[in-house]
Amino acid sequence: MNTLSSWKDKALFTPGPLTTSATTKQAMLRDLGSRDSEFINTVKEVRQILVELGNGKDQYTAILMQGSGTFGIEATLSSVIPPNGKILLLINGAYGQRMLKIANIHRIPSSELICFENTVPAISLFESSLSSDPSITHVAVVHCETTTGIINPIDVYGQIVKKYSRIYIVDAMSSFGAYPIDLNACGIDYLISSSNKCIEGVPGFSFILAKKDVLQATEGFARTLSLDLFAQWKGLEGDGQFRFTPPVHAILAFRQALLELENEGGVSARGERYCQNYELTLSAMQKLGFKAYLKKENQGYIITSFRYPEHPNFNFQDFYARLSQKGHVIYPGKLSHADCFRIGHVGRLGVADVHALMSAIAETLTEMDITLVEQRG
Amino acid sequence: MNTLSSWKDKALFTPGPLTTSATTKQAMLRDLGSRDSEFINTVKEVRQILVELGNGKDQYTAILMQGSGTFGIEATLSSVIPPNGKILLLINGAYGQRMLKIANIHRIPSSELICFENTVPAISLFESSLSSDPSITHVAVVHCETTTGIINPIDVYGQIVKKYSRIYIVDAMSSFGAYPIDLNACGIDYLISSSNKCIEGVPGFSFILAKKDVLQATEGFARTLSLDLFAQWKGLEGDGQFRFTPPVHAILAFRQALLELENEGGVSARGERYCQNYELTLSAMQKLGFKAYLKKENQGYIITSFRYPEHPNFNFQDFYARLSQKGHVIYPGKLSHADCFRIGHVGRLGVADVHALMSAIAETLTEMDITLVEQRG
Repeated sequence: MNTLSSWKDKALFTPGPLTTSATTKQAMLRDLGSRDSEFINTVKEVRQILVELGNGKDQYTAILMQGSGTFGIEATLSSVIPPNGKILLLINGAYGQRMLKIANIHRIPSSELICFENTVPAISLFESSLSSDPSITHVAVVHCETTTGIINPIDVYGQIVKKYSRIYIVDAMSSFGAYPIDLNACGIDYLISSSNKCIEGVPGFSFILAKKDVLQATEGFARTLSLDLFAQWKGLEGDGQFRFTPPVHAILAFRQALLELENEGGVSARGERYCQNYELTLSAMQKLGFKAYLKKENQGYIITSFRYPEHPNFNFQDFYARLSQKGHVIYPGKLSHADCFRIGHVGRLGVADVHALMSAIAETLTEMDITLVEQRG
Repeated sequence: MNTLSSWKDKALFTPGPLTTSATTKQAMLRDLGSRDSEFINTVKEVRQILVELGNGKDQYTAILMQGSGTFGIEATLSSVIPPNGKILLLINGAYGQRMLKIANIHRIPSSELICFENTVPAISLFESSLSSDPSITHVAVVHCETTTGIINPIDVYGQIVKKYSRIYIVDAMSSFGAYPIDLNACGIDYLISSSNKCIEGVPGFSFILAKKDVLQATEGFARTLSLDLFAQWKGLEGDGQFRFTPPVHAILAFRQALLELENEGGVSARGERYCQNYELTLSAMQKLGFKAYLKKENQGYIITSFRYPEHPNFNFQDFYARLSQKGHVIYPGKLSHADCFRIGHVGRLGVADVHALMSAIAETLTEMDITLVEQRG
């Protein structure tokens, strides 16, 4: 352990796990029995608040699933598609590709609409893909593709999915809690997100918001025991307990994080703070000479991809390490065709933290003897 | 939240999640980037210590898997058995039955040696089951069946498994860290345990100790993405990172818990403390008139099942609630054929806590107007 980190943690400009509030972490300084009433009531409360956040009313339910966000995606895909089902995947990044991997490993028939990572899947192409194949039962898309930070129009896709009466699955991993999402208005049947994203909890579980009548029809479809969404729901609805040991402490932190989201002013206020972080990051980075990968109209305020500058002295590993040493953690790229790094705008960070990061980046460029030309916005 | 619990947590006499030390929980008061070097080094250190605890030397590796213990069991069973494999399951409780469920859902051929919950699977019967079926490739057994608290002789079974050159999987969920287990001497190829058992960490992940050359041969066998043991190992061995977001805070707590295990004097010292808790619990409960479900020679010092007393005033829900109100959480039974409740002996609890529980039980019996006859040891 280095001496710096032992007295102050680095600021995490990543897509998660994120910097969380001290009080959220302090909520973990307890041990509760996972089958005792206090914990059962905590889980119930958390599930209710999650449904409210999606404006899900009585039509929706929330299911917590142990593991990371990917576990939640796999739980959903491997549990809700019937043996004779087929999924259409809209793919413009690594997380869409990951859904395809999951479909493949479970031998779920799929078709894919794959487009460039800097482009949202075209509405008309999507509609024709869907209308031309009546065997498609489910459609899945990623809301904010963390690969680039692009925002896909889940509401528009949702209208088309509903027009053709299919079931609609949205990976809102890194957007839920920061972008207002009305489940019903978007026609969403399953939305998946996780504890360590924009709710600002610690990692340990994912959660699935599911339309009850759709979920109710999925009994027996699950292809695993641990990730059986229907059985997990039945357990939580029955005696209020998890089937298998839950991450008690992460759930205690999450409840605190949900209270702090409410205190901040809810999803819109949080989205505004993140958006300020984003705007400041983008303008300062452009001033320093960095180019954003996406066009501004496609870019969300969750995370931004910047192209490696074309300068012989630029080396990402060195750049990253120097920033980390100064107390700022940025994120490597994940693009298939362009050299990029990423800066996240989410978590318990504000404009003061962004200013500090930008100073550190300016200092680091000087250290590395890199001078760049200011970019236009 | 009741007022008592807000200032002092109840003592957890359960099979886990357990009462943990304050310092273990305090280790979670940080946010580390999951792809940053400090966290990567923490994971490396944790994995090394786990291999040392099993005396695994260079032959074994440790893999952490997000989720509960069951996720680790499913990760193992669904990842290491080839398409043409077959597993023999030794079953004397609910956790053996759970392995069968997992085998079934993944359509892994199996045969079962099922015996009474108060009996260990007979050695001779096991040997004839194994020797008579050459299609069996893998054998799995639970070390401490938490259903009852029975200890199955994993070393003896291991010798037979190795005599017939099969692969040996041991669910040591609730024993690892409290019973000394020499992986090589027991012929174990895969051992599964979890963060919130006798290492005294918080829940959030399981871990698998695997014999490297055996694991190396399993590429492509996985039936899921999230629970792919081989891919998880390759990730941790490659850049030291998890494939998918790890429970950072639970891992930080676990490292602290491992240091505290060492400071306590290691597995034998911890086992001794638990054994004292057990001996005191058993003698005091017998004095109060309760009968243990198992014969003493089969009983381990992890958890003990007690039969419901034959008294018209005894009602378990009431008994449980009264103890909980007094600050002691015991555990319901899980037996298929006998009415029992359970008292755990593990976690950050010592004889003073056991004395306090026993006083509370005596007081509760008086409140419920129950007088029982002292049992002989």
